[in-house]
Amino acid sequence: MFQINENYLKLKAGYLFPEIGRRVAAFSDAHPDAQIIKLGIGDVTEPLPAAVVAGMHAAVDELASRDSFHGYGPEQGYAFLRDPIAEQDYQARGVNVSADEIFVSDGSKCDTGNILDILGANNSIAITDPVYPVYVDTNVMAGHTGEADDAGRYDKLVYLPVTADNNFVAELPTSPVDIIYLCYPNNPTGTVATKETLQKWVDYAREHGSLIMFDAAYEAFVSDPSLPRSIYEVDGARECAIEFRSFSKNIGFTGVRCAFTVVPKDLKATASCGTEVSLHQLWNRRQSTKFNGASYVVQKGAAAAYTPEGRAQMKSLIDFYMTNAKLLREGLEAVGITVYGGEHAPYVWLQTPDGMGSWDFFDRLLDKGHLVGTPGSGFGAAGEGYFRLSAFNSRENVETAIERFKSVVS
Amino acid sequence: MFQINENYLKLKAGYLFPEIGRRVAAFSDAHPDAQIIKLGIGDVTEPLPAAVVAGMHAAVDELASRDSFHGYGPEQGYAFLRDPIAEQDYQARGVNVSADEIFVSDGSKCDTGNILDILGANNSIAITDPVYPVYVDTNVMAGHTGEADDAGRYDKLVYLPVTADNNFVAELPTSPVDIIYLCYPNNPTGTVATKETLQKWVDYAREHGSLIMFDAAYEAFVSDPSLPRSIYEVDGARECAIEFRSFSKNIGFTGVRCAFTVVPKDLKATASCGTEVSLHQLWNRRQSTKFNGASYVVQKGAAAAYTPEGRAQMKSLIDFYMTNAKLLREGLEAVGITVYGGEHAPYVWLQTPDGMGSWDFFDRLLDKGHLVGTPGSGFGAAGEGYFRLSAFNSRENVETAIERFKSVVS
Repeated sequence: MFQINENYLKLKAGYLFPEIGRRVAAFSDAHPDAQIIKLGIGDVTEPLPAAVVAGMHAAVDELASRDSFHGYGPEQGYAFLRDPIAEQDYQARGVNVSADEIFVSDGSKCDTGNILDILGANNSIAITDPVYPVYVDTNVMAGHTGEADDAGRYDKLVYLPVTADNNFVAELPTSPVDIIYLCYPNNPTGTVATKETLQKWVDYAREHGSLIMFDAAYEAFVSDPSLPRSIYEVDGARECAIEFRSFSKNIGFTGVRCAFTVVPKDLKATASCGTEVSLHQLWNRRQSTKFNGASYVVQKGAAAAYTPEGRAQMKSLIDFYMTNAKLLREGLEAVGITVYGGEHAPYVWLQTPDGMGSWDFFDRLLDKGHLVGTPGSGFGAAGEGYFRLSAFNSRENVETAIERFKSVVS
Repeated sequence: MFQINENYLKLKAGYLFPEIGRRVAAFSDAHPDAQIIKLGIGDVTEPLPAAVVAGMHAAVDELASRDSFHGYGPEQGYAFLRDPIAEQDYQARGVNVSADEIFVSDGSKCDTGNILDILGANNSIAITDPVYPVYVDTNVMAGHTGEADDAGRYDKLVYLPVTADNNFVAELPTSPVDIIYLCYPNNPTGTVATKETLQKWVDYAREHGSLIMFDAAYEAFVSDPSLPRSIYEVDGARECAIEFRSFSKNIGFTGVRCAFTVVPKDLKATASCGTEVSLHQLWNRRQSTKFNGASYVVQKGAAAAYTPEGRAQMKSLIDFYMTNAKLLREGLEAVGITVYGGEHAPYVWLQTPDGMGSWDFFDRLLDKGHLVGTPGSGFGAAGEGYFRLSAFNSRENVETAIERFKSVVS
């Protein structure tokens, strides 16, 4: 009899966003006239930049003609996209990343999950708490954890709380860990890390032989030039860190699907036989064997975002969402809510009023305000008592949401 | 110190097609004027059907406007694609598959690799030999095998030879196996399975509690209506088989990226605690957690292939490639080459002349004829002495290739 991967049976309930979807659908069925505004899942709402639209149309036309048709592309991505990524996102900022260290994919969610394919089964894993649930769930599925307790904390995972108590800066682990997930600007808290904070982590990783998984999906939202946008701005990171980036939030690709992962050639591990192994080669082998490249049309669209017009349109899009974030912050603070994030990230992280539980507040906001947010506890036990609002919406919806929010909490 | 997945170190050389790519690139560098014709990798060459092109353009336009914008889609695929798949590919043929059993993805290569995520670590795996290398390599990477021997056979994998000696019909395994990979129409041999052959496998699987991975990527090329196009045409298959299908070859999506996997709700396993577990639920959880859906634009393109115009254009495309296959068969037979396949599959499988080794023949064909094919041994030890030619090319290239082939082997 064939066996299943029983680690899946350890997973708690559904993945966070499907669970939210179920509750919203149930409310909507019961109240078909309610005009629900969704600030829950971090999903973009504004149209694609015009340059990107033009790039995708042109790519479709190429595929419509034999002479310009493209079949299988390089699994790692086309040079027309990898080159401008390396030049504009890294080299122009003085960061040492080359085009062949960039692996284009169909999404960071995929990459942050799939990266575990190339890693061993017995690594100890550290995550901040609260955290993007995909890091946790994919480690559970890969058998890197034990069972969950009642608060949803899995045995063997090392949780590093980030709360108002430590100003959302995690302490270094007290016992050595092998793999550390960091996300800055942070999802869900919207907070950022200074170069000094990242340097502390890189130094830790190099001292302990740890690997840092650095999720920079929201780097485009950093507006303070003194803040790092890549972990490779920090000395020694090329020897200990993988960086994940996405086109989902900066050019609105949540439905179009494109991302990339940087695996530096300096990143090495030692196999049990003593052989030095390049993670770049391992990931290249993984992607060549289990992936066939992102869609040609999609890559052409992403590449168009690196043209001068594309850059300008992307900046407008980011500015638009960041103005939303600013309005949310200010609107909530005006009614006495304590708010974090939202300055260099499209998420506002608030303390629930009167110490309400996160899911209770979710239900109250949905019921009384027809507003959807994300319960902090859905991101981890230390997120209990917090709540995330996404700035991805129309201006009108954001303004309406603020008014409704005020009436719910007042 | 973090550890890597050392199973990767067991992998022999590169994945087959990158290795071919390297040899062709080296030849091309040395002979820059050579007009190389590639019949190696099964990559399509003809433009996308017009209906599909129109569907993709319309989708891009939708994303260019706020009112019709789509962000994150369902991880399982949109109903506008799952519904016609279920209706036209299955129900219209009297096959019981419902839309919610269909998981749309960005490729069958991904799906056939990723499916191992939901399966246990100790299953015994059977593959036909020769076989699509991804089945083997992904099992090696997942630790389901031992080391490879000199012929490239991995310890613990059960190899079921398919050669001219058994008319390319594999014998049932002599000791029980848990997972069986079957691909019909077959890659690489181009041969097909009758309903009786599939029934034999389904009966075996049900008797032994085995899971069949049925790769139907080439089903559109079946022209004999008495031959099965889905394993679910066979009694009992819903209880023991997962089916993989692709848009790569029927509508030319190798670069566009779309496929789907059918996981029937009747497919159950028993966990070690005795609980019955639905594989449909496991795969749904895997896809929800590690995947974010295929690109909206791509899914709209695939859906357009289910319109009447799309159907007709797809049929023309398939007819075109199958005429290529027929020409290849006849051309090779005319110079005394023994040829298999190519009647219900876009691949022609030939015996190398004079018992030459597969890679030797590869090098000779490249060197003397500037032709690229795929060495049979690249698909497994039992493929030694065979060679695969792909029918995916322009008519002109196919006709030129036949003439060159004749001059090389004459």
